[in-house]
Amino acid sequence: MREQDLSSIVAEVIQSVSCIKMTLSLAEKIAGAVQQKASQMGVNAVIAVSNEGARPILVHAMDNAYIASYDIALNKAYTAVALKMSTKELQSLSQPEKPLYGIQHTNNGQIVVFGGGEVLVSNGKMIGGLGVSGGTEEQDTALAAYGKAFFDKEFAL
Amino acid sequence: MREQDLSSIVAEVIQSVSCIKMTLSLAEKIAGAVQQKASQMGVNAVIAVSNEGARPILVHAMDNAYIASYDIALNKAYTAVALKMSTKELQSLSQPEKPLYGIQHTNNGQIVVFGGGEVLVSNGKMIGGLGVSGGTEEQDTALAAYGKAFFDKEFAL
Amino acid sequence: MREQDLSSIVAEVIQSVSCIKMTLSLAEKIAGAVQQKASQMGVNAVIAVSNEGARPILVHAMDNAYIASYDIALNKAYTAVALKMSTKELQSLSQPEKPLYGIQHTNNGQIVVFGGGEVLVSNGKMIGGLGVSGGTEEQDTALAAYGKAFFDKEFAL
Amino acid sequence: MREQDLSSIVAEVIQSVSCIKMTLSLAEKIAGAVQQKASQMGVNAVIAVSNEGARPILVHAMDNAYIASYDIALNKAYTAVALKMSTKELQSLSQPEKPLYGIQHTNNGQIVVFGGGEVLVSNGKMIGGLGVSGGTEEQDTALAAYGKAFFDKEFAL
Repeated sequence: MREQDLSSIVAEVIQSVSCIKMTLSLAEKIAGAVQQKASQMGVNAVIAVSNEGARPILVHAMDNAYIASYDIALNKAYTAVALKMSTKELQSLSQPEKPLYGIQHTNNGQIVVFGGGEVLVSNGKMIGGLGVSGGTEEQDTALAAYGKAFFDKEFAL
Repeated sequence: MREQDLSSIVAEVIQSVSCIKMTLSLAEKIAGAVQQKASQMGVNAVIAVSNEGARPILVHAMDNAYIASYDIALNKAYTAVALKMSTKELQSLSQPEKPLYGIQHTNNGQIVVFGGGEVLVSNGKMIGGLGVSGGTEEQDTALAAYGKAFFDKEFAL
Repeated sequence: MREQDLSSIVAEVIQSVSCIKMTLSLAEKIAGAVQQKASQMGVNAVIAVSNEGARPILVHAMDNAYIASYDIALNKAYTAVALKMSTKELQSLSQPEKPLYGIQHTNNGQIVVFGGGEVLVSNGKMIGGLGVSGGTEEQDTALAAYGKAFFDKEFAL
Repeated sequence: MREQDLSSIVAEVIQSVSCIKMTLSLAEKIAGAVQQKASQMGVNAVIAVSNEGARPILVHAMDNAYIASYDIALNKAYTAVALKMSTKELQSLSQPEKPLYGIQHTNNGQIVVFGGGEVLVSNGKMIGGLGVSGGTEEQDTALAAYGKAFFDKEFAL
């Protein structure tokens, strides 16, 4: 076996098993991108980033954000990781007469069933979640999607 | 009275008063059966078994289960025992305009109003509850029903 | 470079980065060992095992365990992981006039400041926690230490 | 009245009423300074900054921080603002037989009675609080004091 082949195989193996871990530095970059976008949109948002254990790593409240948005952003990040789906997806599933109606009451007030929470995935593995609150539901949904897209483009393998 | 009659009467009486109690050993058997079925279905479930006092006896989180499923499975087992009905039955009763609309707010976040919680009954007496969470609501409902059927076949008198 | 050398180097590297992850199967083995020991000691314990995110993976309540022990065992496992120390170590630190007096009130009632909670470490990395409740504080401390020693002997690298 | 006198009076009045408001930008600077110091000390800290309403503006969890430190740092910042004193001052007041013994139970688990929480004051007016958790109580106390001194030097009028 040639050394060249070997090194390419080893690189491939490492690539296949490796994924980014959520760090404070990464969380700050994602939050910074969302904050910049929110400013452009005229939204005073709270941005929360959690790790793969649904534990919060960063929360930033932009100036003049709603007081309520702190808990909402934090819980959106929790919900996304704890159920492995965006809170927007959960929105339709939790309406009256829908399969998960009532899920907003099952986890000590931590489940949010409207848009603004996204899962962050690297190399097929969930590494954390992002929650945004502060604008209209439509704006929060767009901002969280923006943050997820920023992460995907810059950091996801 | 002949001895034969007496013994059959005694047997009948004993039969009528006896019922299995929920034990850890029994809970493990039920959980094991549900876990095996869940694996076949490709579901990473959390399984909770509680006793007749609605107190948890066992909780098992299968690998890669949703973090949120821990509370949901536990609360499904609680709900089934605390209201003596499956959470699937409660689902229709708790919709807007239905008699028990709002019951999901009455017990400190412990009431789940979608499928996956079943009562375990032995000899006509409720001895505990089973809660399953981790798949779609349809899958959780099927898995809890499977666990209840397994219990009925193997252990219920 | 000879193939033999290469394979031994690769094995070494893998060994150095690898560590066991908490799984339900591993949690069941640890719980089983603690339950057997508790039975020998005449203690009806609740055993809880959590992962490295302080999320519960398994809870087992032995027959006739205290109802209160469910929360205590769960919180001991949480405390050990969330503070990276045994709850026995925390006991002395949290006494009146000691540095961490009052820490039992800081985390929503999840911090336990007496013995029975241990950290599980593999290859230098914390992979989860063990909580035991049901006997005297001395017995719980001994049972958690037993469970940790069992893990170290059988599974820790 | 000469113009010169007037302008100096106006300047004095403005000076006496003006004070910095807590902003996300300011919170990030304080957190950054504390994080740098914590790194030098080998402490993986959680840093929380709240505004004058005791509402959180920023929380940063450094890599490998204790999970429990999130709530503790947040509650230290709350405590400092809510009681207008450092948590270190509160420590002695809340010991058994001392005047405020029991205060750790009065505010839904938000009162921390050991070091690491400081009030941030600008021009004689409290504008927010700082909470640090992650090291020993001595280290947390030192880090919060460092953050307060950094703020005083750079930003307090």
